[in-house]
Amino acid sequence: MPHYSRRDFIARLGLGATALLTAPSIISNARAIPQDKKISIALVGLGYYSEFQLAPAIMKSQYCRLGGIVTGTPAKAEKWKKQYNLPDKSIYSYETFDRIANNKDIDVVYVVLPNSMHREFVIRAAKAGKHVICEKPMAVSVKEAEEMIAACKKAGVKLSVGYRLHFEPFNQEAARFGKGDFGKVKMVESSFGFKIGDPTQWRLKKALAGGGAMMDVGIYAIQASRYSTGEEPISVTAQEFKTDPVKFKDVDETIFWQLEFPSGAVASSMTSYASYIERLYISAESGWLELNPAYGYGPLAGKTHQGPLNLPIVNHQAAQMDDFAKCIFENKESNVSGEEGLKDLKVIEAIYRAIQTGGKVKI
Amino acid sequence: MPHYSRRDFIARLGLGATALLTAPSIISNARAIPQDKKISIALVGLGYYSEFQLAPAIMKSQYCRLGGIVTGTPAKAEKWKKQYNLPDKSIYSYETFDRIANNKDIDVVYVVLPNSMHREFVIRAAKAGKHVICEKPMAVSVKEAEEMIAACKKAGVKLSVGYRLHFEPFNQEAARFGKGDFGKVKMVESSFGFKIGDPTQWRLKKALAGGGAMMDVGIYAIQASRYSTGEEPISVTAQEFKTDPVKFKDVDETIFWQLEFPSGAVASSMTSYASYIERLYISAESGWLELNPAYGYGPLAGKTHQGPLNLPIVNHQAAQMDDFAKCIFENKESNVSGEEGLKDLKVIEAIYRAIQTGGKVKI
Repeated sequence: MPHYSRRDFIARLGLGATALLTAPSIISNARAIPQDKKISIALVGLGYYSEFQLAPAIMKSQYCRLGGIVTGTPAKAEKWKKQYNLPDKSIYSYETFDRIANNKDIDVVYVVLPNSMHREFVIRAAKAGKHVICEKPMAVSVKEAEEMIAACKKAGVKLSVGYRLHFEPFNQEAARFGKGDFGKVKMVESSFGFKIGDPTQWRLKKALAGGGAMMDVGIYAIQASRYSTGEEPISVTAQEFKTDPVKFKDVDETIFWQLEFPSGAVASSMTSYASYIERLYISAESGWLELNPAYGYGPLAGKTHQGPLNLPIVNHQAAQMDDFAKCIFENKESNVSGEEGLKDLKVIEAIYRAIQTGGKVKI
Repeated sequence: MPHYSRRDFIARLGLGATALLTAPSIISNARAIPQDKKISIALVGLGYYSEFQLAPAIMKSQYCRLGGIVTGTPAKAEKWKKQYNLPDKSIYSYETFDRIANNKDIDVVYVVLPNSMHREFVIRAAKAGKHVICEKPMAVSVKEAEEMIAACKKAGVKLSVGYRLHFEPFNQEAARFGKGDFGKVKMVESSFGFKIGDPTQWRLKKALAGGGAMMDVGIYAIQASRYSTGEEPISVTAQEFKTDPVKFKDVDETIFWQLEFPSGAVASSMTSYASYIERLYISAESGWLELNPAYGYGPLAGKTHQGPLNLPIVNHQAAQMDDFAKCIFENKESNVSGEEGLKDLKVIEAIYRAIQTGGKVKI
């Protein structure tokens, strides 16, 4: 069970469950959460993203603390233990991981492993009774994602996906278009690509990554077209290209795709491991927005029909994890739940099918 | 026959034909052309583009002057005659146009009519022995374009297309990528769209325009992907969307298309009459470029891996017509010849076929 239960939280506020349900404004107000209240996160997988993004973000967060680690490398365990002053009982290997069920000092398990391992570790975390954050893509198939959602539901734990941009002001401004603030959205261009380095890394192995650029960064472009329109796509066409078939023999390198939404809005996107692009453009009836760079760890930049966007530069991951902490405190679903992650995987599978068939695929 | 023949020009320079052939550097040097030497242009069709772009551009040009007009509207003839001090003999209606053959004061006929009339008037101009500039798209089909090229060849006159951006510094910078200055080009995004107004205008009638946004502004995006890569596309996929099927019942509104080039470079483009976009992005091995706005009458703006582009702001049309004047003086083919216009029409027809078939079309 998570360290801070909803009952615990309600007790601290001095409110009964009934008062809580009828006074959501109190609960959704951050000031109502005691400043010293923090959820404890265990990071599973200590690669680049954990070491240089997530751990520093936890340090900057308001409601989170680093409570434990799960790693297959003893030297990493030793280093992290010292750096973050972690107790021995909160340091796990992949083999001992399931014992985390007995560790009351861990509320959340954050899965930061190669994509094809997400399913296993999310389900093991759920069985251990821990809330879960899973990095994107949440799985390598729709089927896996559905199993993960079901497992978390069965275990009564919350599941969220590491979609940090939902808590990032420039992308939140884009999401205003999806809420209709600037009239009907007509067209979106969203693309994310970069030149990938080390040819031996797991991201280039299908068995570990599930796919190439599409799974890794194309998913951001899909996400952006969905929150920019506020709609779910109904059909897709897609084209795959390989400029380096040797390096990318196992996974997709460059994919273009085109989405159609129920309102008639359309989106054109590309992703690539061979060339850099990182941009979101929205054209709506009464305005437009362009973010460039749009999706990296920041600082991001953008402009609209009203001029340059002057928005706060925040730590994306700290904001994302703080939001999940609040979801736990307030016992509500995350906006970036497993269901949200599943929607992107449905689009990704449709894109792969559209490439195979060469035609338009319904989603 | 054009007013200034090559022989005339050579005579003025005091050079024999042989000297000319062996001393091209003298000829290609603008200073070798006498400052008072100008070609005389007759504009055919006095719509917005002639009135507010071409005529003012001729006034700003170095080697051109407005020599005559061809119009179906007597009131326009009267207004232009006064404004530009034109002699009666150089003012034609569409019926009397062919008499221009006898007018030694006209060197060039510039066809600025609705697209479906280009073929007829270019061929009539050629038969009258005049060099021709034809607005883009040069015709509404490959077949028409081939007939126009053949007619000009047969008449011994030069034909060029109004591709002003070939003479515009920001787009010339993009063309440096196509020349390999920044390594292999990997990916291009080029899009041009705007929200078209007056629903009664000729651009929305297929019989006059030949097509919609694709014919009007999509052609710029095709051009840009061609000069950005320096290659001719070998295949295309394309998708058409209509957000307003009533307004755009006769012509295409929004089209996405994807081009593949022999080197493996790929381009993703869109054009629209329903939403604004005007951008060129090139990603190459050792650099990138972004123009935004990329294709309008200016001023344009852009940046590269080296920083913001600080380039001269020129009058596109003046530069374009001056270049054609020099082509006449020096008796060489324009870089934006009929053959160049034909290449774009081949791509456009392939895009329309790809939309119809839903599959990949070889070009």
